[in-house]
Amino acid sequence: MALPNGLAAAPAADEELGVLQQPLLLRRSQSNTTSQIAIVGSNPCPIESLDYDLIGFFNNLAVENIAGTKFVVTSNMMLAGKFMVAFLVFASSNLGLTLFASLITAFIAPEAAGSGIPEVKAYLNGVDAPAIFSLRTLLVKIIGSICAVSSSLNIGKAGPMVHTGACIAAILGQGGSKRYGLTWKWLCVFKNDRDRRDLVTCGSAAGIAAAFRAPVGGVLFALEEMASWWRSALLWRAFFTTAVVAIVLRALIDVCLRGECGLFGKGGLIMYDVTSENISYHLRDVPPVLLLAIVGGLLGGIYNFLLRKVLRLYNLVNKKGIFYTIILACIISISTSCLLFGLPWLASCRACPSDASEPCPTIGRSGNYKKFQCPPGYYNDLASLFFNTNDDAIKNLFSKDTDSEFHRSSMLTFFATCFFLSIFSYGIVAPTGLFVPVIVTGAAYGRFVGMLVGSNSNLNHGLFAVLGSASLLGGSMRITVSLCVIILELTNNLLLLPLIMLVLLISKTIADVFNENIYDIIMTAKGLPYLEGHAEPYMRQLTVSDVVTGPLQIFHGIEKVGNIFHILKHTGHNGFPVVDEPGFSASPVLFGLILRDHLISLLKMKAFSQNPTRLGPDAFLQFSADDFAKKGLGHGDKIEDIELTEEEMEMFIDLLPFTNTSPYTVVETMSLAKALILFREVGLRHLLVIPKVPDRVPIVGILTRHDFMPEHILNLYPSLVQSRWKRLRVRFPQLSIFI
Amino acid sequence: MALPNGLAAAPAADEELGVLQQPLLLRRSQSNTTSQIAIVGSNPCPIESLDYDLIGFFNNLAVENIAGTKFVVTSNMMLAGKFMVAFLVFASSNLGLTLFASLITAFIAPEAAGSGIPEVKAYLNGVDAPAIFSLRTLLVKIIGSICAVSSSLNIGKAGPMVHTGACIAAILGQGGSKRYGLTWKWLCVFKNDRDRRDLVTCGSAAGIAAAFRAPVGGVLFALEEMASWWRSALLWRAFFTTAVVAIVLRALIDVCLRGECGLFGKGGLIMYDVTSENISYHLRDVPPVLLLAIVGGLLGGIYNFLLRKVLRLYNLVNKKGIFYTIILACIISISTSCLLFGLPWLASCRACPSDASEPCPTIGRSGNYKKFQCPPGYYNDLASLFFNTNDDAIKNLFSKDTDSEFHRSSMLTFFATCFFLSIFSYGIVAPTGLFVPVIVTGAAYGRFVGMLVGSNSNLNHGLFAVLGSASLLGGSMRITVSLCVIILELTNNLLLLPLIMLVLLISKTIADVFNENIYDIIMTAKGLPYLEGHAEPYMRQLTVSDVVTGPLQIFHGIEKVGNIFHILKHTGHNGFPVVDEPGFSASPVLFGLILRDHLISLLKMKAFSQNPTRLGPDAFLQFSADDFAKKGLGHGDKIEDIELTEEEMEMFIDLLPFTNTSPYTVVETMSLAKALILFREVGLRHLLVIPKVPDRVPIVGILTRHDFMPEHILNLYPSLVQSRWKRLRVRFPQLSIFI
Repeated sequence: MALPNGLAAAPAADEELGVLQQPLLLRRSQSNTTSQIAIVGSNPCPIESLDYDLIGFFNNLAVENIAGTKFVVTSNMMLAGKFMVAFLVFASSNLGLTLFASLITAFIAPEAAGSGIPEVKAYLNGVDAPAIFSLRTLLVKIIGSICAVSSSLNIGKAGPMVHTGACIAAILGQGGSKRYGLTWKWLCVFKNDRDRRDLVTCGSAAGIAAAFRAPVGGVLFALEEMASWWRSALLWRAFFTTAVVAIVLRALIDVCLRGECGLFGKGGLIMYDVTSENISYHLRDVPPVLLLAIVGGLLGGIYNFLLRKVLRLYNLVNKKGIFYTIILACIISISTSCLLFGLPWLASCRACPSDASEPCPTIGRSGNYKKFQCPPGYYNDLASLFFNTNDDAIKNLFSKDTDSEFHRSSMLTFFATCFFLSIFSYGIVAPTGLFVPVIVTGAAYGRFVGMLVGSNSNLNHGLFAVLGSASLLGGSMRITVSLCVIILELTNNLLLLPLIMLVLLISKTIADVFNENIYDIIMTAKGLPYLEGHAEPYMRQLTVSDVVTGPLQIFHGIEKVGNIFHILKHTGHNGFPVVDEPGFSASPVLFGLILRDHLISLLKMKAFSQNPTRLGPDAFLQFSADDFAKKGLGHGDKIEDIELTEEEMEMFIDLLPFTNTSPYTVVETMSLAKALILFREVGLRHLLVIPKVPDRVPIVGILTRHDFMPEHILNLYPSLVQSRWKRLRVRFPQLSIFI
Repeated sequence: MALPNGLAAAPAADEELGVLQQPLLLRRSQSNTTSQIAIVGSNPCPIESLDYDLIGFFNNLAVENIAGTKFVVTSNMMLAGKFMVAFLVFASSNLGLTLFASLITAFIAPEAAGSGIPEVKAYLNGVDAPAIFSLRTLLVKIIGSICAVSSSLNIGKAGPMVHTGACIAAILGQGGSKRYGLTWKWLCVFKNDRDRRDLVTCGSAAGIAAAFRAPVGGVLFALEEMASWWRSALLWRAFFTTAVVAIVLRALIDVCLRGECGLFGKGGLIMYDVTSENISYHLRDVPPVLLLAIVGGLLGGIYNFLLRKVLRLYNLVNKKGIFYTIILACIISISTSCLLFGLPWLASCRACPSDASEPCPTIGRSGNYKKFQCPPGYYNDLASLFFNTNDDAIKNLFSKDTDSEFHRSSMLTFFATCFFLSIFSYGIVAPTGLFVPVIVTGAAYGRFVGMLVGSNSNLNHGLFAVLGSASLLGGSMRITVSLCVIILELTNNLLLLPLIMLVLLISKTIADVFNENIYDIIMTAKGLPYLEGHAEPYMRQLTVSDVVTGPLQIFHGIEKVGNIFHILKHTGHNGFPVVDEPGFSASPVLFGLILRDHLISLLKMKAFSQNPTRLGPDAFLQFSADDFAKKGLGHGDKIEDIELTEEEMEMFIDLLPFTNTSPYTVVETMSLAKALILFREVGLRHLLVIPKVPDRVPIVGILTRHDFMPEHILNLYPSLVQSRWKRLRVRFPQLSIFI
């Protein structure tokens, strides 16, 4: 019943109401409950929003300054005609940054690799991967992300920002980091699962809010993509958090507008302002947009397919050892540098337009018209895209009144390069995001479509780029409402809303036919047991007794210390039913469920008695509520750390006062689908199965997350695999050979 | 255990898995289950979105044309100096329209009165008020809303639009209206509770989308305010629906732009375009905005308080009979006409500005500078607000570059009038909304604050009006994220986002101290038993056995027809436990739960047998799945309609094949708070309570919605009322005397 891969199950509603919620003992006394209520009622989120801001802001600032300096230095060398030196400086600085990011990730915190969104999503679903929220991971994530993004890899910062936000939230939620001595007493009020889960949800909302300066989009992203459980109080808390983020961010940008942030960009809260005063579109603009959405959906499906393949390949490399993973990262960095520096040479120089709104060619960091190798008065359109940060490339692609700036072949080259580079860059051992690369790739794709459509449409190419981004995001991420709002907040263009909705609708629908969304693919690749909210059809044909597996370990109401110690040592179970013996009641009665953590706490505090006697309601007097509080992630005591004497082994503990006397139960004949609904909706970790006919043992087994996983069930009943394909999603059986 | 006021409980997850989900009987046979799965997997929402569009669009069109014609006629008479005649025409046309709306509402469909949002919200929570979704209600709602809004009452159309959308959804969901012979065979696939609930949710999203042309805001409104249960599939369906609404609406507006819609307004999807190119605000703009938000929150609290008082007063009037309610509506209409026509005379005429962007004074329907009684070259600023539709008033208030157009005293008069008129207008017997009046009132309030602040702020008065609307909406509706998005979609001004978030944050927080949100107040006033998602603190001190009330009616596995008939006739219970007798098993076993509807179906089909024999799995052969399908709202069979002979009364039915064999159960010692979580999260109608110690009757009682209602519990345990006030919400005990 233990989870695979050493994963511990995390937030659960029944444990939350665990030890301190003993209706039988504490009934109508208000002693223990009130303080907990006050905690639940408080607003845990906003405390931390300031941290997100600052980190989000300085992250941006650092990236813009490091990458900007690199481009300025290289450009200056190019101006002086020293192309070879420029390339060497460019490639070696990129390699150095990537290498640094990879080294700290591989050696200090391997959990910080990748986007982090799948891990956070899995945590919010109840899967607690070890060390994903440690202080170590947080630091590596921040520094590694800055270095990796600055090194011109085709990766994003949004995913790492979400992970960073969630990390800060989780660390605050467990009262700081014990290991590094950073603890705050007042933060300990959050020591329960639900508040910690809420904090992490708010943290991920704040991450998106800070990364894209999209506060409402952040809330919706957390709601649509991240959270497995949602309640209106949480919506309000997430809104509170991102509102504070938005307000502080606005104030910080105000400071930057006065030019005190070095190379950090301009603009208010909107990153890519594409408002053209009079956008009007008519019926004849719809067919090209439909085509763009359909192809975008297909591309999104292919993107996910290829990413899964590449991740599988990289997994093989990673298994060979740390050295190979570092080499892999270096190879990706060098090839990226070669492509970014090499491909612009293929493009021919174009004469500067006479009516350009900005200086042409641009000398310096960002700008629409990069000089690159061209003579004065000319610019290299491919370099304007490649030889830039991703943010600036998006800005160039989204901007209006630049329909004639790029050549078709340049756009196609840029699109194809981004498409494949982003797939190959994601899996390296460094903090890498997927959002921005998909936006860039989609923008290039959309603009290319716009060029093909040409004058047959009223929409300018910048708007086509926005729609292209939407289509590829919809096709790979499969999120809708939040994406809509994020794109609106990024581009400040409400008039485009119906078209964006149309594009998202179509691209998601089409891509859904082929495979799952990108985060589900990564979660599967990482072996995170994500529990879906809906039941698979074949679960309706099974009862819970079909999947419950033994052997079941049962404790008695008064149990020998030695028994407890040995059972804890030799099983990995996290919850044990407590059954009262006939000696104390007429027939065996299921008294409740006791948690491994609480048993270990009891053993550790040596609350033993010589004789098998009942303690009664006074049992709590020798403990404080804090003794049974949820420990910080990965900080729980282990049974191996407890040493007991022979004499102690023979003593007794009265488990009843520490038992959750009313665990959720289902009858053994219940359909598995119904049990799953209960398990998922209430957010349980253990679900006790009781027999239909009472005159046997009062418990049949315990269901945990593992028992509901499709892989486990299909393993038990291979004949059901057939019926698995009967869902409405269209699947091609012959395709499944290749996938 | 029956619900008060004749309300039936509606959507429930356990009944959904009811009769056709018999894991014991149908295990591993795929016969009955697959068809249901296919239904669940399909996308029920978008079918109907076209209807919303058309109704939403033509609703707007009708209002604009009726009200517009009225204003044009009256204005022309004023131009000719015939003021008295103008007033009489204005007042009598208003009275006629109001009277018509009231009469059809009072006599044909009293359920159509009011906003409809509270009823829909209660339905989505599981409360099925009779006839709220009938075809009759739908028609009266549409026509009544058009008439009432056109009659210049200070009421809105958004609430009725939401109800209309939900109505269409529900009618489609039950396969058309049987009563009026409008049925569609292919729609019968939605005959289960969950799909119908989803449809109604999508319908309410489409209602807001059509009313405010705010598709994303509509989805979020349905999510934040309406839905009690949410899952990601529903988000996608709601998005699908509103996307279709947005796209079709855009196309229809395209048609109108060509001038084919009479007096219907211009503009794309954005209703009030307030974009000023360079909004910049700095730290010194924050204090006035903070002040505005704080006072706005207070005003929102007072608004809700007064509305509750007025509703209570109106309830007394309504009890006196239909005649008095009609008279009340007429009085409100006449006073509104007097105020709208009379108050502008108090304002002095103002000289037209020389640099006005539009003709001044306006001759005709809408426009910023109404002539009213003024000489040529002058305009009446109060008439520009009063003597207009609400939409045009909002447009005037939100518009930029009009800082000097209005006088302070005019704005204050307008604000105070709107504030009280909207409170007194809501409760009349006609379809009335609250959204638009609150927006108008808030805009006037915001603009007044802007005038007070004057040149101390960079923000123009139009932006202050937007913020004022946000503050009053936040203070009375208490919704945040969706309101943010709706305001953005209404005004096309993303740069204002941080300020809007700040305002909503503060106004909601402040208003929450005083009372609940406006829809909860209306629901309480209407006696709709809305079940909150969180447990009240005192519920943690009670066990389920404390609130379960008897007497419990139990059926045997094989039951006499006469018994069933009499029990159904003499109790109002909707679910009955089926307990197997010792004759068939070793000790009494709880076999499951059977629903009243299914028992009635069995009685109606006279599926009796002469002897008490088991039917076995063949029992289903004589029935079709449709026999047990959920009936349309209010169309279920009644026990009174069934006639049985003496002989039939003595026959038997084997209930076991029709029993839900695995109902959700809780043990009698479980805390009420935990049981509530299960009941609410899984969406149950009946929750069986089983005994802790097995050797008694196998069931203690059944918990229904009623048993979880705070009123019921506090009635049983008056001593808990004290602890009720211990929640974090600050309450003033002395205030509760007045409330």
